[in-house]
Amino acid sequence: MVRNLKITLAYDGSDFHGWQAQPGHVTVQGTLAEAIERVTGCRVLPQGSGRTDAGVHALAQVASCQLDAGIPPENLPRALNHALPPAIRVLSVEQVAPDFHARKSARAKTYRYRIFRDEMCSPFLARYVYHYPYPLDEEAMRAAADIVVGEHDFTSFAAVDPERGRDEEAVSNLRTICSSEWNQQEEELTYTVCGTGFLHHMVRNLVGTFLLVGKGTLDREGMKRILEARQRSAAGPTAPACGLYLVSVEY
Amino acid sequence: MVRNLKITLAYDGSDFHGWQAQPGHVTVQGTLAEAIERVTGCRVLPQGSGRTDAGVHALAQVASCQLDAGIPPENLPRALNHALPPAIRVLSVEQVAPDFHARKSARAKTYRYRIFRDEMCSPFLARYVYHYPYPLDEEAMRAAADIVVGEHDFTSFAAVDPERGRDEEAVSNLRTICSSEWNQQEEELTYTVCGTGFLHHMVRNLVGTFLLVGKGTLDREGMKRILEARQRSAAGPTAPACGLYLVSVEY
Repeated sequence: MVRNLKITLAYDGSDFHGWQAQPGHVTVQGTLAEAIERVTGCRVLPQGSGRTDAGVHALAQVASCQLDAGIPPENLPRALNHALPPAIRVLSVEQVAPDFHARKSARAKTYRYRIFRDEMCSPFLARYVYHYPYPLDEEAMRAAADIVVGEHDFTSFAAVDPERGRDEEAVSNLRTICSSEWNQQEEELTYTVCGTGFLHHMVRNLVGTFLLVGKGTLDREGMKRILEARQRSAAGPTAPACGLYLVSVEY
Repeated sequence: MVRNLKITLAYDGSDFHGWQAQPGHVTVQGTLAEAIERVTGCRVLPQGSGRTDAGVHALAQVASCQLDAGIPPENLPRALNHALPPAIRVLSVEQVAPDFHARKSARAKTYRYRIFRDEMCSPFLARYVYHYPYPLDEEAMRAAADIVVGEHDFTSFAAVDPERGRDEEAVSNLRTICSSEWNQQEEELTYTVCGTGFLHHMVRNLVGTFLLVGKGTLDREGMKRILEARQRSAAGPTAPACGLYLVSVEY
């Protein structure tokens, strides 16, 4: 019996070459596909809600695939987790409607970026945050956060993506951001952003540019002009991958 | 000016081949020595309070070395942390009396072992705990903890150590345990043990044997007999390295 499955999974992206399966590299998608094959005997390539870069983590990435396997979906998490390395955990597997597709059906995604502000970053935290102990005007960053809310052309914050141009998404860099917030809690400064879609490196480029605001090299108006400029060279550097988490995908 | 230095450091042991410098392997001691050389130009091999195995972590390992460097000790932590990978952090550097030696002057050490009890272990925790979601009689483990307190010959809990026999420590497997405790807090079961010295693999072998008590294959009396047997084959298996932390060294 062929079932369409929605797989929700968390991963520590530190030791993976990103989500997308690539020959000669250990990736999350490739590792998940191998585990599915080992458990069910079926060779499928689960489609993610989107790619995450090397080093980017996920609290609840979603993947979908058609599976013709005897094993009931509710038994799959435990079986897959036995086959997967501890850095990837399947949180749930549900049977969904045949037309569900993890990427195409996604309505919104939430990402979080964690910046650790203390002078010293514990070795047990270092893989999971961007350690930035230097002065920042956090109030200015908070105040600039809403600039990106709404529908905008985010070309200024998009990396040149070798994979782009292959499907219909390539035609436009218009995306809608529903919420964008900087928060401080103890030694951590976090950026949480929810949107209908994100371009390649977009969250990391937004964070890198907000950091310029925090450093005082850019003000709110300057950030607005960067957004309006629609060219990548206008924006700040790409923040390191290790601070970024795909938090959730809404359908 | 030659100073004798006491260096306190924390490390995530996951990606190191243990403490001790070895040709062809990335070790904590070797990495620290390289950082000291890069910062001060001095080639020294800092002596640890003891070796930790591959995968074992430290919250406050202590190392000592004689250093003929112009840089004041209080500036060393920041300089060394710039030169070290994020998985090792120097917490402090103090000038100490010329006869201080991290291993020989140590009066006691505290180790902790973390066991994660939930069905699912987060990928962000997996490197830092031993995931054991199966039934355990935790009360029996707690009740057996004090068996090892006091002075005992711990041969039953000592691995055959290729490095032994080279110095005076080799003559005796007598060690004194000051405290030994199992505690449960939320999903974690932790073993904390303080002693004047520990044999190779001793804490992990103690934990592996206490786990037999938890599983019901061994009772308190059985554990006592293993201690008295003074032969390694009597005890339980060696618990995985990833759950173990060197917590502190007392001088």
